[in-house]
Amino acid sequence: MISIAIASIFILLVAMAVDENEEKSAPAADPLPSWNEGSTKDAIMDFVTNTTNESHPDYVPAEERIATFDNDGTLWCEYPDYVQSLFMFDRIREMAAEHPEWNDTEPFRSIISGERSYSTNFTVNESLQIYVTTSSNLTADEYMSLAGEWLNSTQHLRFGQPYTKCVYKPMLELLSYLQSQGFKVYIVTGGDEDFVRSFSEEVYGIPPEQVIGSAFKLQFVENNSSVSVVKLPQILVMDDGPEKAKEIQQNIGMRPIFAYGNSNGDIAMLQFATSDSRHGLGLLNHHDDPVREYAYDRQSPIGRLDEGLDIAGEWGWQIVSMKDDWKEIF
Amino acid sequence: MISIAIASIFILLVAMAVDENEEKSAPAADPLPSWNEGSTKDAIMDFVTNTTNESHPDYVPAEERIATFDNDGTLWCEYPDYVQSLFMFDRIREMAAEHPEWNDTEPFRSIISGERSYSTNFTVNESLQIYVTTSSNLTADEYMSLAGEWLNSTQHLRFGQPYTKCVYKPMLELLSYLQSQGFKVYIVTGGDEDFVRSFSEEVYGIPPEQVIGSAFKLQFVENNSSVSVVKLPQILVMDDGPEKAKEIQQNIGMRPIFAYGNSNGDIAMLQFATSDSRHGLGLLNHHDDPVREYAYDRQSPIGRLDEGLDIAGEWGWQIVSMKDDWKEIF
Repeated sequence: MISIAIASIFILLVAMAVDENEEKSAPAADPLPSWNEGSTKDAIMDFVTNTTNESHPDYVPAEERIATFDNDGTLWCEYPDYVQSLFMFDRIREMAAEHPEWNDTEPFRSIISGERSYSTNFTVNESLQIYVTTSSNLTADEYMSLAGEWLNSTQHLRFGQPYTKCVYKPMLELLSYLQSQGFKVYIVTGGDEDFVRSFSEEVYGIPPEQVIGSAFKLQFVENNSSVSVVKLPQILVMDDGPEKAKEIQQNIGMRPIFAYGNSNGDIAMLQFATSDSRHGLGLLNHHDDPVREYAYDRQSPIGRLDEGLDIAGEWGWQIVSMKDDWKEIF
Repeated sequence: MISIAIASIFILLVAMAVDENEEKSAPAADPLPSWNEGSTKDAIMDFVTNTTNESHPDYVPAEERIATFDNDGTLWCEYPDYVQSLFMFDRIREMAAEHPEWNDTEPFRSIISGERSYSTNFTVNESLQIYVTTSSNLTADEYMSLAGEWLNSTQHLRFGQPYTKCVYKPMLELLSYLQSQGFKVYIVTGGDEDFVRSFSEEVYGIPPEQVIGSAFKLQFVENNSSVSVVKLPQILVMDDGPEKAKEIQQNIGMRPIFAYGNSNGDIAMLQFATSDSRHGLGLLNHHDDPVREYAYDRQSPIGRLDEGLDIAGEWGWQIVSMKDDWKEIF
């Protein structure tokens, strides 16, 4: 009698287990709920479905499923200015106490006075000078810690949120979707790689070793039993345009099969992923939503899409309308 | 009756499942069977056990468990010459047909004639010239394909095996053991990174993006709808000595907690992993087995251990005796 009772419990448990399995084999929940149905979402879903299906001609083994994403304007908001530029301007203001000479020296003077407060107000050489001044003679850990503190204590003026909350919800879903399908996802940014590394794991689920970006020459410093690696005041790479393709080759050792950007600086990366007979997928965010975010491209000095928009058709890239393709932005 | 029979089968199945679980909780098989018992093996096992044990003070979260390995002399045999040097000499001989001028030009003449057949016969500048000549104007894919063909068609003279079989069995076990315990394992080689990438996945289970090494400047080449990245005849980095620490910082974005090398060129990498109050583990292979492999260090121009042997004690590094600590070599 007892054994029959126990057996019944087992039968019940097994039946429940079978039920659970059946549920698992039901169609999976939509992995991209913030994306509106349409040709863009279809292109992404079809690409992932085919490249992960062993019996499909476009199948790609997991170890070659490399996806690369730009950061500014692609994963998070870059308007009205690059977040890193705002960080650098604040660093200059903070460092000013120890540099009284800056009150008479450009470009520092007009940052401190607030006369020029956007990166577009500065020449390329001035911007490089600001980048070098705010980064050099620090270890990566020291720099990341300064960046992390700043990100925790500042907010986007219009959205009233920390910048790390001004990331695009549909893009977070896309990162997770690709990762769940065996893709190794990289950020390939024109920004400083340590700046992005300071929040990439927490915000995007992308570890520091999968962030490739602009960087300084380094120096190995030995001091008794303590060694460290320090940023020299000399830029090693500005990771934009063709540099993105070269850095991808150097760091990853193979071409991506998926590349997503938003500006002319991402074109080489998309070409690298989709050139020749490859079935790679290239996408560009089109900032065309003035109500929920911003509308810019050909008109704005930030995140220009001019050339990308012009050649997307010829290269078979998807132009993602943030207004029409996304249910939500943040 | 039938239901009782079915129930009995379920009971049997459940009992079997329980048995299986009990087996799983039994002590795991030795993950390092080719290592002799002793202080070196204990140091490795203790380090891995502690850094992966959440309640131990030395616990390190999985995302920070970075391990870096040198290649030549650490993972595979580098004697009597670096494998990559032998590849380069053969490349020169193969390319000679298209370079009749090489018959009168050093260092090519004496490679072709066989007068000088070891890398130690050449000056540093000659070695760099040979490296540049045999690598430039190729894409990484083209270069890796040449390296792969060569590795498949040549053998180590003494061991009568392809070089990719002249890898150290205890080291393969160690790579697997660390990976199974959540470590992300990198090769950090003074050799060309694409040379090592041509076999790292197959031989070591380490994907190309986890190989950091010497490399050339690259050029992005656009040709209608085809783009590629080509090696320029200009060295970007010779990844040896302090460069190893700098490349680790640049590529991985954090310090390793485990570093394993065999020569003076690995010292900075080991220091970077073990400096200050960190509980990182550093190890150096000591080639002291003339019967099963080779005995060299202070005496040989290949893989010198001079300084490493001298400072290992002070830094708390393990000197691994290949003769005493390893049951088998290959």
